Amino acid sequence: MFKLGQEITSDQAMRFSIETAKLGRGFVSPNPLVGCVIVDSQHKFLASGAHLRFGGEHAEINALKNLKDKSKLNGARVYVTLEPCAHEGKTGSCAKALSKYPIKEVYYGLKDPNPLVAGQGLEILIKNGIDTYPFGKYEEECEEVCEQFLYHIAHQKPFISMKVGTSLDGKIALASGESQWITGEEARKHSRNLRAHYDATLIGAGTFMFDDPLLDFRGTGYEHEKKNKVIILDPKGKAASSFKDSKINKKHGPKNVFVLTRSEFSEAWAQNLVHVINWDSSKDSWNQALKNLYNKGIASVFVEGGSYVFGQLLEHQLVQKIYMYQAPKVLGAGKSWSDFLKLESLSEAKVFKKWKTIPLGEDRLNILYF
Amino acid sequence: MFKLGQEITSDQAMRFSIETAKLGRGFVSPNPLVGCVIVDSQHKFLASGAHLRFGGEHAEINALKNLKDKSKLNGARVYVTLEPCAHEGKTGSCAKALSKYPIKEVYYGLKDPNPLVAGQGLEILIKNGIDTYPFGKYEEECEEVCEQFLYHIAHQKPFISMKVGTSLDGKIALASGESQWITGEEARKHSRNLRAHYDATLIGAGTFMFDDPLLDFRGTGYEHEKKNKVIILDPKGKAASSFKDSKINKKHGPKNVFVLTRSEFSEAWAQNLVHVINWDSSKDSWNQALKNLYNKGIASVFVEGGSYVFGQLLEHQLVQKIYMYQAPKVLGAGKSWSDFLKLESLSEAKVFKKWKTIPLGEDRLNILYF
Repeated sequence: MFKLGQEITSDQAMRFSIETAKLGRGFVSPNPLVGCVIVDSQHKFLASGAHLRFGGEHAEINALKNLKDKSKLNGARVYVTLEPCAHEGKTGSCAKALSKYPIKEVYYGLKDPNPLVAGQGLEILIKNGIDTYPFGKYEEECEEVCEQFLYHIAHQKPFISMKVGTSLDGKIALASGESQWITGEEARKHSRNLRAHYDATLIGAGTFMFDDPLLDFRGTGYEHEKKNKVIILDPKGKAASSFKDSKINKKHGPKNVFVLTRSEFSEAWAQNLVHVINWDSSKDSWNQALKNLYNKGIASVFVEGGSYVFGQLLEHQLVQKIYMYQAPKVLGAGKSWSDFLKLESLSEAKVFKKWKTIPLGEDRLNILYF
Repeated sequence: MFKLGQEITSDQAMRFSIETAKLGRGFVSPNPLVGCVIVDSQHKFLASGAHLRFGGEHAEINALKNLKDKSKLNGARVYVTLEPCAHEGKTGSCAKALSKYPIKEVYYGLKDPNPLVAGQGLEILIKNGIDTYPFGKYEEECEEVCEQFLYHIAHQKPFISMKVGTSLDGKIALASGESQWITGEEARKHSRNLRAHYDATLIGAGTFMFDDPLLDFRGTGYEHEKKNKVIILDPKGKAASSFKDSKINKKHGPKNVFVLTRSEFSEAWAQNLVHVINWDSSKDSWNQALKNLYNKGIASVFVEGGSYVFGQLLEHQLVQKIYMYQAPKVLGAGKSWSDFLKLESLSEAKVFKKWKTIPLGEDRLNILYF
């Protein structure tokens, strides 16, 4: 955080704008995370703001609100991760709001991804005498910060991330089934926090029955702030009878639970008062189920296993990102997280385009993009 | 490399001493890799030297040789990765050689690991008016540079490293057996270079028959400089009949090949004129076989698979280090490099104490120590 009046570079301003955007994580969906930093004509820090909650003010408006003395905006520069919006939606147009002040320049990380409105915010600014420039640098970071939004707007279905906690030889359990715990507490807490950055958590019926998980945010800042939707994939209808007494039912309530299952099991599941979505493991049924979830307000999904779910999503190339927590251990023979993906030849291998690593205690988090 | 007369810090001197030690990699076994840097009384760089070949001069002698004007040694400081030797062996005592000059101080990375002679080199220096100090910093790096030596001197058996080329889900082949190639050319070349840092390469009979590998150093600086011994683990005597026409026989010759097999197959193998060592998969037989190899001059072994060999060595805790090349890919169902290790419970997991990572093209090399 910079102090009012502290001189900062344009580089620092944009990087801080990206960091500020992250303050809204978990609360803005299906909107994008956006950050905004304002500096004065001497490049002294004036204010920052983020879009913090869906339905709340946008980043630019919050930054303006955070600046008491508006006279300092004479000749000011604004650094925003995403093009200021043109339209009047739940909140007013950000481009119009900025135009009320004698701001000199607006630097944006990305243009609006919607081709129908891209550039309209910039046009309003230009008409009002504010110069606009693409920042050029940190485009990748600006994309990552609103990756869920960019994806669901382009594809009209949820952005999907998988979370895997594995040994260095790719195992998630011993042959005996023993699986708790492979990674350390720091990694597990980190993943509970990540869970909150998504609209819904997806697990398979096996994980549901075997682990009876809470899928909560204990130990993180989201603990009392947020509840996720839960999606259960139950190909064989096995979990319907265990739902009533499950922790998920007690914690989340049936209205927040979506079950993907074959039509013959939908009636059994419907008795639990959950949302039932038809699914038959084909790519088509996946796409329809995901569109269905999207239309019910789920724009991002965090997938926590087990390996049948992972295999299905990998096979149909429905995963955008993998969070792979690796513990510095060898487990040997046992269950691999990727066992259900069957390839005919090495040329079919699922290849990651981007690979970043963060140390977490003894473990490491690999962030992988397809 | 520093220029003669360039002022350098003691930190730079010790780090350069460690880098210089690496010049002897692959050629000094069973001796340690040692590096030496000399600076004058004003901390200006004078010379560096390494132990480059078994039977050749030690690092200190080579550094002295690399300095033409010995008058500059008045008040000089010497930075050496390992305590200068006291004894007169194939070459003279380094401590005595240094003592001939008006050197002021010797900083050493490690004391001689042999408790019987530790400190004797230092004593000679001190008697001759040279102050000696442990450098304190970079002890881990000094240990790593001569890790093979430190291990085999302490245990009287070879230092063992495993090399694994794997996908991010721990697979080394598809279910069909297809395995070439998972990692990229840069990683494969890197591992051919590593192979040369060891006295011998160990493979299983399956790898021997299926791949018919050359186990050479093509594309590296070792290509025409060095030949390794080859060790074949053949539990079922299956490979004896394929040996005559194998690339290993043609490239390395039977005198450089050691076969570990059960007694009932030793006769068949002996007909190939290779060295046959009795082995029966028990920990005892492993230890005896390794002592046997050690007594035949093999102080370090580079293990290249397959998974039966890996499993055996992991189970009996005979591996000191793993080089794990990871490709940014998911292969799904298939063969894992650790399939032959069977654990009863998670508490038996083989845990790494140290984990370093180096990017290699698209892939990454994880260097792991037990």
